[in-house]
Amino acid sequence: MQLKKFLPLAAAVVLLPTLGFAQEADMTPPNEEIGYIFTTFMFLVTGFLVMWMGAGFSMLEAGLVRSKNVTMQLTKNIALFAIAAIMYYLIGYNLMYPGDGWTITNVLGAFSLTSLEPVGGSPDTDLTYASVGSDFFFQLMFCATTASIVSGTLAERIKLWPFLIFTIVLTGLIYPIQASWKWGGGFLDANFGFLDFAGSTVVHSVGGWAALAGAIVLGPRIGKYGKDGKVNAFPGSNLTLATLGTFILWLGWFGFNGGSQLYMDTAGNVADISRIFSNTNTAAAGGALAALILTQLLYKKVDLTMVLNGALAGLVSITAEPLTPGLGAATLIGAVGGVIVVFAVPFLDKLKIDDVVGAIPVHLFAGIWGTIAVVLTNSDATIGGQLISIVIVAAFVFIVSLVVWFILKAVMGIRVSEEDEAMGLDRAELGMEAYPEFTNG
Amino acid sequence: MQLKKFLPLAAAVVLLPTLGFAQEADMTPPNEEIGYIFTTFMFLVTGFLVMWMGAGFSMLEAGLVRSKNVTMQLTKNIALFAIAAIMYYLIGYNLMYPGDGWTITNVLGAFSLTSLEPVGGSPDTDLTYASVGSDFFFQLMFCATTASIVSGTLAERIKLWPFLIFTIVLTGLIYPIQASWKWGGGFLDANFGFLDFAGSTVVHSVGGWAALAGAIVLGPRIGKYGKDGKVNAFPGSNLTLATLGTFILWLGWFGFNGGSQLYMDTAGNVADISRIFSNTNTAAAGGALAALILTQLLYKKVDLTMVLNGALAGLVSITAEPLTPGLGAATLIGAVGGVIVVFAVPFLDKLKIDDVVGAIPVHLFAGIWGTIAVVLTNSDATIGGQLISIVIVAAFVFIVSLVVWFILKAVMGIRVSEEDEAMGLDRAELGMEAYPEFTNG
Amino acid sequence: MQLKKFLPLAAAVVLLPTLGFAQEADMTPPNEEIGYIFTTFMFLVTGFLVMWMGAGFSMLEAGLVRSKNVTMQLTKNIALFAIAAIMYYLIGYNLMYPGDGWTITNVLGAFSLTSLEPVGGSPDTDLTYASVGSDFFFQLMFCATTASIVSGTLAERIKLWPFLIFTIVLTGLIYPIQASWKWGGGFLDANFGFLDFAGSTVVHSVGGWAALAGAIVLGPRIGKYGKDGKVNAFPGSNLTLATLGTFILWLGWFGFNGGSQLYMDTAGNVADISRIFSNTNTAAAGGALAALILTQLLYKKVDLTMVLNGALAGLVSITAEPLTPGLGAATLIGAVGGVIVVFAVPFLDKLKIDDVVGAIPVHLFAGIWGTIAVVLTNSDATIGGQLISIVIVAAFVFIVSLVVWFILKAVMGIRVSEEDEAMGLDRAELGMEAYPEFTNG
Repeated sequence: MQLKKFLPLAAAVVLLPTLGFAQEADMTPPNEEIGYIFTTFMFLVTGFLVMWMGAGFSMLEAGLVRSKNVTMQLTKNIALFAIAAIMYYLIGYNLMYPGDGWTITNVLGAFSLTSLEPVGGSPDTDLTYASVGSDFFFQLMFCATTASIVSGTLAERIKLWPFLIFTIVLTGLIYPIQASWKWGGGFLDANFGFLDFAGSTVVHSVGGWAALAGAIVLGPRIGKYGKDGKVNAFPGSNLTLATLGTFILWLGWFGFNGGSQLYMDTAGNVADISRIFSNTNTAAAGGALAALILTQLLYKKVDLTMVLNGALAGLVSITAEPLTPGLGAATLIGAVGGVIVVFAVPFLDKLKIDDVVGAIPVHLFAGIWGTIAVVLTNSDATIGGQLISIVIVAAFVFIVSLVVWFILKAVMGIRVSEEDEAMGLDRAELGMEAYPEFTNG
Repeated sequence: MQLKKFLPLAAAVVLLPTLGFAQEADMTPPNEEIGYIFTTFMFLVTGFLVMWMGAGFSMLEAGLVRSKNVTMQLTKNIALFAIAAIMYYLIGYNLMYPGDGWTITNVLGAFSLTSLEPVGGSPDTDLTYASVGSDFFFQLMFCATTASIVSGTLAERIKLWPFLIFTIVLTGLIYPIQASWKWGGGFLDANFGFLDFAGSTVVHSVGGWAALAGAIVLGPRIGKYGKDGKVNAFPGSNLTLATLGTFILWLGWFGFNGGSQLYMDTAGNVADISRIFSNTNTAAAGGALAALILTQLLYKKVDLTMVLNGALAGLVSITAEPLTPGLGAATLIGAVGGVIVVFAVPFLDKLKIDDVVGAIPVHLFAGIWGTIAVVLTNSDATIGGQLISIVIVAAFVFIVSLVVWFILKAVMGIRVSEEDEAMGLDRAELGMEAYPEFTNG
Repeated sequence: MQLKKFLPLAAAVVLLPTLGFAQEADMTPPNEEIGYIFTTFMFLVTGFLVMWMGAGFSMLEAGLVRSKNVTMQLTKNIALFAIAAIMYYLIGYNLMYPGDGWTITNVLGAFSLTSLEPVGGSPDTDLTYASVGSDFFFQLMFCATTASIVSGTLAERIKLWPFLIFTIVLTGLIYPIQASWKWGGGFLDANFGFLDFAGSTVVHSVGGWAALAGAIVLGPRIGKYGKDGKVNAFPGSNLTLATLGTFILWLGWFGFNGGSQLYMDTAGNVADISRIFSNTNTAAAGGALAALILTQLLYKKVDLTMVLNGALAGLVSITAEPLTPGLGAATLIGAVGGVIVVFAVPFLDKLKIDDVVGAIPVHLFAGIWGTIAVVLTNSDATIGGQLISIVIVAAFVFIVSLVVWFILKAVMGIRVSEEDEAMGLDRAELGMEAYPEFTNG
């Protein structure tokens, strides 16, 4: 690493003698083809980072459930990721980005299969700035993320198949329809000026509302809430994996927020992506430290699971607007997310809503906070537009989810028997333990 | 994330007022130097993704063996990765890409050290479109992947050093020689029109054949096959890590298949890479869901290890041709891979071939399927050319591997004693347990 | 993957008929704006790889401590990463890169908050070749890495809060001040011609010296060194996670060394980055194999933890000069690192310096070796300049660290009570076990 800052401009120009102008740098933006390559490759790189978040959720959730339910949690996570891929291909993508082909204008997109450009893909498609394939890949990963959020809340008591059927509805219909309202140019975008850069509402709170509906219909785990109002802790079985999962999500979030810039074809755009990376990182740090300090003050002991969830809440909080804040503001926005988590976890327990991994505080509560916080640093956002959009998305997702969960409960049952829950889903439903040699009886 | 699709072309042109033409986008491909930077960087990014697969195999295998053999499995995996790096430098790379320097034309490459371009590397090397260093880095990771496949099959009973010596032969000679036949422009490429985009045959089935030869010479683990024909299950010790390994491999595969496009210097090429990413993802999803559904139907219980191997088989299946299929075809090609795994695992057990992690079904059987499936979507492929190439590679790798394993068996023995196998390789061969505080006696 | 090498230049030119010259490739370097995009994106990609090393250290350390201290080790690792982010924003970055704003010229940088460029960031900042945000992001990760090194050495006996306070000093003051001497253009760079490409000294040995000072002040763990001179082994609780951590670090190191090229705006620069990737990989392989062979020869058994640390030492060794060596030299430089580790670990034990994870051999000893080894392949380096720089950095970091540790010891105590150490920090300090269902009593 050589000395690098404050490089005299002249030095750079020495490298370009053939260009014949020695006084100024040539800051002409790339032509469209070069911009197309830059933006497309950026979608692929940020997309694989978001894909990696699927592993992060798996590890986080597997680490926070008890060992007798780990195989089931892993099965759900890999299955939901696969289902999201198929459903987003079958109907999700075109439902979310209907272009001129809305079934109901600005409300319901188009029902058709996703089709990528032909072999030797010419860039002459309806996407003029990046390949359709890269956009599909990137957007699919957001759909999968939404589904991942739900699985954690409902762990340790929900049956496999009803959960997977709900995932089909969520990834095929619920997520893409409401996402079209903002990102597909629908009415939240067109009529309310709703701003949600990378999805504090469109992704995270959507997962949170679906999870909340499920938690209400499903009820808490046996023994979680004692008759005397006592809340029993069911410690996670493997905090190392929970920490790994958090690091994976932290890493993946650079793709999640950074890629949502959607263009990397100019110096200005790539500089914006850089700001987003830095803000995303510092918001996570703010959330983690807020939870660290707060649990020390409140409980006299630092609580690692709160620190992990604090970092995640910081990430969710900055997701609606990772570009306009400075580093200080981003840190504080994230820190508020961390504070929210520390208070929201016991609050949910008071309501006897049993959220196994804390996904509702992290993704729903911090998601709402982040969506509101846009107005603090982005003058294009209005508090009214943000709030009404939050409410509309909430009503749609929560009500539809509630209906789906009730139907599933009525038709096939969604909860395992008490005996199976006590035995653990791994042995009862799958006949396969995650750590067959380790657990103490 | 702003609204993005269907951006009017005019809007883009607004950004380019100085160019003086407002009617059309400037889709002139980049000049060679810019193309060189794009392609080289693409090799580095996809190469580090493939490198990451080494961690994936380690976690998958460590999770699927019993805890008494985990340290050994980890040792083998990190050692084989290091050996591949050295051997590919010493002889592999030039053996695989001899250019005009074949020792036997189109059959045996050149024996010499790999030499990267000098410092301040000018692009005036024999690679005109990317740096030699990036190509070496990328190709090396494929060689390492081949070796990773073998270690899983032979786990829990093979000695460390004969395994490492075999790895030297595999990565230094067997892999690069047969790879030169296709990717070095050898006779399979020149005479048979063999198509294998990213290596369903050249990488995966090669690892599978070497593993199969080893499994036959080595014999099954003690107690695996009862006298009454009963197959005893030896459950993996840590399914969380096996799942993590699968996610790592899934992620790494974007690099594996995507980087095999070999060029990212035009809009067409980067669009192709995008298609490859999307197809790779959906094939994995197809394989996972096929195994999920099939194990539910066959065994009335979903089998997580089958789902994981199903996803991997989907990935192997799409590897020979990840570009030409549409998303639907890619999903189905992957799904067939998942089906193959579900049937192949018990089939191998019937033959009393003991493959600890299911690497032969995943990499060999699905690799053959994927190589044949090229003809379904790529009209340049012929069924004859594909089949004869599969057979030639199979014969070479299987026979040479068999000979090497027999020599190793005769000279130094390849299998631990019965006592050591019962005790576990970790204590017997290494004196170090992976989880010294956890296991139940 | 098609045949690719030795593509006739003519073939490439066919793709460019409109350019009107068919005889030569157009190797004109990109204009500044395109170069700016390339370099900025390169910083983001390599930066996220270095960020990922935070997870690597966490897994490595969590795997190498006993299970009763795992939650604490994880808490420290995620907290130090968050602290580094905040401190580098608050003072580190401008302290390290003062430009013309030194507080004491070439010795002490500027005290001010980091400020990234405004929204829609124009490239007209003091960084003319990449965005400030990308540079901040990349450099921050180096600061965090330095702090990660310390936590491993001091594991299993240090209290949480004094460790975090030391981390504040290290990341806010010690690291950036000494880093400014080289990378900020300070006196080691200007007066001594010190060469340290990616930080064998500036990052790794700095972490090592801070750790060594801490280990001396803190003292060894209870029972580690018997009265009879016997060294008691405290085996790590989870070697799978330790191996995963090593793979993560190996992967992240491509970013660490590759990104330190600092430019990716020409074919020459990206070719250099490619060489760096290849050399980094082979040095790790050399270190791993040296430790593998040496432990077999010395102890008749391969020692996995030595192999892992050997790979890491190989990486540290190549970090001061990953560009100028050829692959063979890089392998040997890494191998010497592996040898150093195998001898240094028992050497430290003889001195009764208790380094729980072997961070001092890996980061300090191999860091010194790597810094000296620069003279072997880079004629711009002088042995005098390297040695004096090593000594100056050592004196500064070691003495300041020692003072800070002593102050912390005097003011608040840095070590847990004997009872707490015996019980384990997880239960004693945090009240939360990492594996509550697994450990044998």
